[in-house]
Amino acid sequence: MDIKEYVIKQLGRVKNKPRESYVVTRVIHKLDDLEIKFVTQQYVSRPNGVWALTDLYFPQFGVHLEVDEEHHFSEEAVVKDKVREADIVNVTNHQIVRINVTGDQSLQDINLAIDQLIKLIKSLKNDAISKDDFTPWDIEAELNPQTYINRGYIKLDDDVAFRTIKDACNCFGHDYVGYQRAGASHPDPAILLWFPKLYENKEWDNSISADECEITERCKIPERAALHFDEHVNQRGKYKSVRIVFARVVGSLGDVLYRFRGQYELDFAASSPEKGLIWRRVSTRVSTYPQPI
Amino acid sequence: MDIKEYVIKQLGRVKNKPRESYVVTRVIHKLDDLEIKFVTQQYVSRPNGVWALTDLYFPQFGVHLEVDEEHHFSEEAVVKDKVREADIVNVTNHQIVRINVTGDQSLQDINLAIDQLIKLIKSLKNDAISKDDFTPWDIEAELNPQTYINRGYIKLDDDVAFRTIKDACNCFGHDYVGYQRAGASHPDPAILLWFPKLYENKEWDNSISADECEITERCKIPERAALHFDEHVNQRGKYKSVRIVFARVVGSLGDVLYRFRGQYELDFAASSPEKGLIWRRVSTRVSTYPQPI
Repeated sequence: MDIKEYVIKQLGRVKNKPRESYVVTRVIHKLDDLEIKFVTQQYVSRPNGVWALTDLYFPQFGVHLEVDEEHHFSEEAVVKDKVREADIVNVTNHQIVRINVTGDQSLQDINLAIDQLIKLIKSLKNDAISKDDFTPWDIEAELNPQTYINRGYIKLDDDVAFRTIKDACNCFGHDYVGYQRAGASHPDPAILLWFPKLYENKEWDNSISADECEITERCKIPERAALHFDEHVNQRGKYKSVRIVFARVVGSLGDVLYRFRGQYELDFAASSPEKGLIWRRVSTRVSTYPQPI
Repeated sequence: MDIKEYVIKQLGRVKNKPRESYVVTRVIHKLDDLEIKFVTQQYVSRPNGVWALTDLYFPQFGVHLEVDEEHHFSEEAVVKDKVREADIVNVTNHQIVRINVTGDQSLQDINLAIDQLIKLIKSLKNDAISKDDFTPWDIEAELNPQTYINRGYIKLDDDVAFRTIKDACNCFGHDYVGYQRAGASHPDPAILLWFPKLYENKEWDNSISADECEITERCKIPERAALHFDEHVNQRGKYKSVRIVFARVVGSLGDVLYRFRGQYELDFAASSPEKGLIWRRVSTRVSTYPQPI
């Protein structure tokens, strides 16, 4: 996907809410900065565990826009089942800007609120630049493992997601052309690269906490769950107990992504055959490794 | 309809063509000038008599935008029957700007073409202002008869259309609260105000030529057509042979409008019971009259 396709598709997603579409297109066109990434209709999880949609999201700055319409989707209206595969952003510490477009707001009022949001985003970009902490959006580079190999690390707030498992693997010393399994080796033999579905699927009922600090890995087949627990906890050392996690998600445009979540360690004490394995995040930043020469 | 509703609805009309929507919203948001009226998906008639849609129309400047997509609607694809009631603009002497959004155009190419269109519109506005020939768009005023009474005239290139027959009548000395008939009196007893459907309807098969200079008024019931001809042509003087025409059309947002077409005179020689009455435009500008005190 190139930037043309991405930008046009993202802006074209809001079809039946003309006021939301007005605000979102105006923000993006007037901001007019292709170094700033945006996502429309971003699934988010709130600290209270409720899932919702924000109308526009700027991942580089952790800023969201919600357009308040008369019939705005209430948070409760978002069905949990619908978003289980979605690329969900945790909005703890994020800034939510609301723009009111209801009847009593004039077009001038709305345009003024949009101008203020644009001013905010521009000033956040300038702040980041002045702190040497701004990476211009580059849609080709952000999907390319070489970008992260060159950088030397992957960290959570860089909003890293790959299109394929092999691309994630290739940040850690592999040079795979294709790779489909849910686990892969890491230069450190104690670490596993893990590509889980963190939602209920056929054999597993995995989940991640709203703050993303805890992952539960539970097999739905009791005998296998018992074995899984036994091999990981009782036979400590048989399997790796440190995992770098790239969770399989469905991105905003319906495309599958493997989203970096951090490095997790098995919590032996909290795990049980019934609850499953409990993994706790120990780092939001991991080193990358060049491919073999 | 206020400006907020108008602008948001107009921009929200392009739903399933994301590239067209991208271009149209970007032009309007970056032009960012509420003194400039625009219409999206404007029906137009071309000199060759073919009807088509342009993607964006600036009535104050006679400029249209067509976004060229891979699967752009060809002119021929517009079914005549679908547009018969539509508010159709004759594009003779209008300027058509095309923006190519097909695969080989980058987002930067498209944005550059949009910037050029915006530059054109701004320079046309400045030219008009310097010639004292620019009327800022005012959605309330343009629908208000008092605007035209104050101005002293209605002229074709001012793009005049009213929401009701009574509003049109009230530009010519009436102070109607409601009025539904297709004809009304004028201070000049020789002139009739006429509010026709210029397309085939139940009893009439009226039409207007592509250049809008000739109106054909033909009753579909043969006996009535003969009588209609006889009373207007043979019994010359029984009925008025000068008409100021406000044609009933369906506007871009589905709203009924009575669109000023000019002053027409009956062409006695060209009319016949079979062809119907032929009316020829004699003026594109008519005087208005204050309401009685």
